[in-house]
Amino acid sequence: LLDLQMQTVTLIPGDGIGPEISNAVMKIFEAANAPIEWEERNVTAIKGPGGKWMIPPDAKESMDRNKIGLKGPLKTPIAAGHPSMNLLLRKTFDLYANVRPCVSIEGYKTPYTDVNLVTIRENTEGEYSGIEHLIVDGVVQSIKLITEQASERIAEYAFEYARNNQRASVTAVHKANIMRMSDGLFLRKCREAAEKHKDVKFTEMYLDTVCLNMVQDPTQFDVLVMPNLYGDILSDLCAGLIGGLGVTPSGNIGANGVAIFESVHGTAPDIAGKDFANPTALLLSAVMMLRHMGLHSHGKKIETACFDTIRDKKVLTKDLGGNSKCSEFTEAICQKVRDMD
Amino acid sequence: LLDLQMQTVTLIPGDGIGPEISNAVMKIFEAANAPIEWEERNVTAIKGPGGKWMIPPDAKESMDRNKIGLKGPLKTPIAAGHPSMNLLLRKTFDLYANVRPCVSIEGYKTPYTDVNLVTIRENTEGEYSGIEHLIVDGVVQSIKLITEQASERIAEYAFEYARNNQRASVTAVHKANIMRMSDGLFLRKCREAAEKHKDVKFTEMYLDTVCLNMVQDPTQFDVLVMPNLYGDILSDLCAGLIGGLGVTPSGNIGANGVAIFESVHGTAPDIAGKDFANPTALLLSAVMMLRHMGLHSHGKKIETACFDTIRDKKVLTKDLGGNSKCSEFTEAICQKVRDMD
Ligand SMILES: CC(C)[C@H](C(=O)O)[C@@H](O)C(=O)O
Ligand SMILES: CC(C)[C@H](C(=O)O)[C@@H](O)C(=O)O
Repeated sequence: LLDLQMQTVTLIPGDGIGPEISNAVMKIFEAANAPIEWEERNVTAIKGPGGKWMIPPDAKESMDRNKIGLKGPLKTPIAAGHPSMNLLLRKTFDLYANVRPCVSIEGYKTPYTDVNLVTIRENTEGEYSGIEHLIVDGVVQSIKLITEQASERIAEYAFEYARNNQRASVTAVHKANIMRMSDGLFLRKCREAAEKHKDVKFTEMYLDTVCLNMVQDPTQFDVLVMPNLYGDILSDLCAGLIGGLGVTPSGNIGANGVAIFESVHGTAPDIAGKDFANPTALLLSAVMMLRHMGLHSHGKKIETACFDTIRDKKVLTKDLGGNSKCSEFTEAICQKVRDMD
Repeated sequence: LLDLQMQTVTLIPGDGIGPEISNAVMKIFEAANAPIEWEERNVTAIKGPGGKWMIPPDAKESMDRNKIGLKGPLKTPIAAGHPSMNLLLRKTFDLYANVRPCVSIEGYKTPYTDVNLVTIRENTEGEYSGIEHLIVDGVVQSIKLITEQASERIAEYAFEYARNNQRASVTAVHKANIMRMSDGLFLRKCREAAEKHKDVKFTEMYLDTVCLNMVQDPTQFDVLVMPNLYGDILSDLCAGLIGGLGVTPSGNIGANGVAIFESVHGTAPDIAGKDFANPTALLLSAVMMLRHMGLHSHGKKIETACFDTIRDKKVLTKDLGGNSKCSEFTEAICQKVRDMD
């Protein structure tokens, strides 16, 4: 494990608790001898030529070179016309697939056990097109854009993900009974991908029916693929089933290996800098990153150390039901990692 | 109770198990001496002049006269271009508010207890506008339409509902961070209504955040108001929390007292005619109807008899965990109703 070539990853620590939890991840990676070098960058949006919001050139350049990023939470901009940084990042690097595995964590009690599913969300279009008009006074239209190309790409990704991750089935989530043309196009592309991947079971289900079934028995689901907004909703719902955004990893995947992994919780300004934050979501996102880079044994080691620490219930942050500081929780995971050698 | 003037209600028994469960409701209403006369109508869509799909004139005439309807499940039409009957009914009678109370049922175990909330869904526009275009080959747009008028109407309805039903708070559910103009307009109208109804607490929350919080702790919610599609999703999610569509009532409310109450489950063709169906959702919808008509004591009586029968666990249909027939379950409720006199 020690002879692996170092790889550089762009680290965007983010705002609020971002720096603390990024620090925790770096410590644990060091304990695990993960062959990662971090290149820290700030992505506060700046106004480019022509007044267009963009991410700072040195952050862009770093990502372009490294292809892989890890990102903490970013505060929501309040300036008028300022875009969400999360959306800007997805757009800038064409990160078309948002992947969120939701797996029940042993020792962290929720109303559900044995959840083990992955939501795959189209990340570039749909209701997020940003195209809106005032038609006449008091009448607004927002445009949901569905293209063949983006639908095909995400459907293909879902089936390939299922195959590469030994998952048995893909469910397409849609409302083609209402949006017959747009969701209809999305669904058709899923059906076509299913035809090409006969080794993976394919089902289709209305979004409302998925939500109902999800809260009744989430174990019936495996990989779910869906347009942008439905993914926004369903991925949060599923995160709720396993304990919330504090323990749920996320990856934004683009073409040619480009990807940004991120915790999707907020910046928690109230506890920022107080050593109270829970680094689990960012750590598990970093584990997804390691797997994406082919570093499976490092990923497994860190993941196991994290889950073992939670299962032990001895050293836990407040939100996980314990009384420990972020640094103590981090050190407990580091210790487990070292004990594995 | 016996001197009340009879009122006529349009009964649309529907397809599949529809006639059985409608029958059950009629029997229970009779046992309770509810002052309701039923006028049965079929609403299979027909093609009107100009090829437009419409509901049969005698059904329309009956609803126009009676103003109140009770409706079983309708099978989804498969003819190309045939509209969903549910949507056609909402449209024909301008039933702008879809109201679904979700209340935990004692004795019917789900992962949640003490759920007690109401989703209020804008029922006429949004993503359900039906306006879609092929822009160029492979690029489709669907139009989400949000109007000031419809947003104001539903926001106002939500606050009035809260006040009339002794509910303390209204939460507006939106994605105005993404759809700034359309959901922004909806949200503004909710804020304006909140200003007018200071006795009711007002909060606003992103749809994804609502979903996450909902599965973690639904008891934090009271009345929720939202655009059409979000309501479709959230009402099914919430139904799942209390046991599914088989036990969840629904009402579609229009102006001037016009309303159709309905069970929102399917037609269950596999068990149709076999006396296996569970009439609870339609019965509880009929109870909503009684309250809407001001017949509160009849509503209370029937509701209590239904919940008592479920709590007793002696006579339950299969889907409720028992072994009894629809007719036996119905008779058990009738007996409780009679015992109350
Ligand atoms: C922050 C917000 C723009 C974003 C979204 O709506 O996609 C978030 O909810 C997410 O899921 O990443
Ligand atoms: C049947 C279908 C058109 C309908 C909808 O999408 O509104 C249903 O899901 C509902 O909630 O009443």
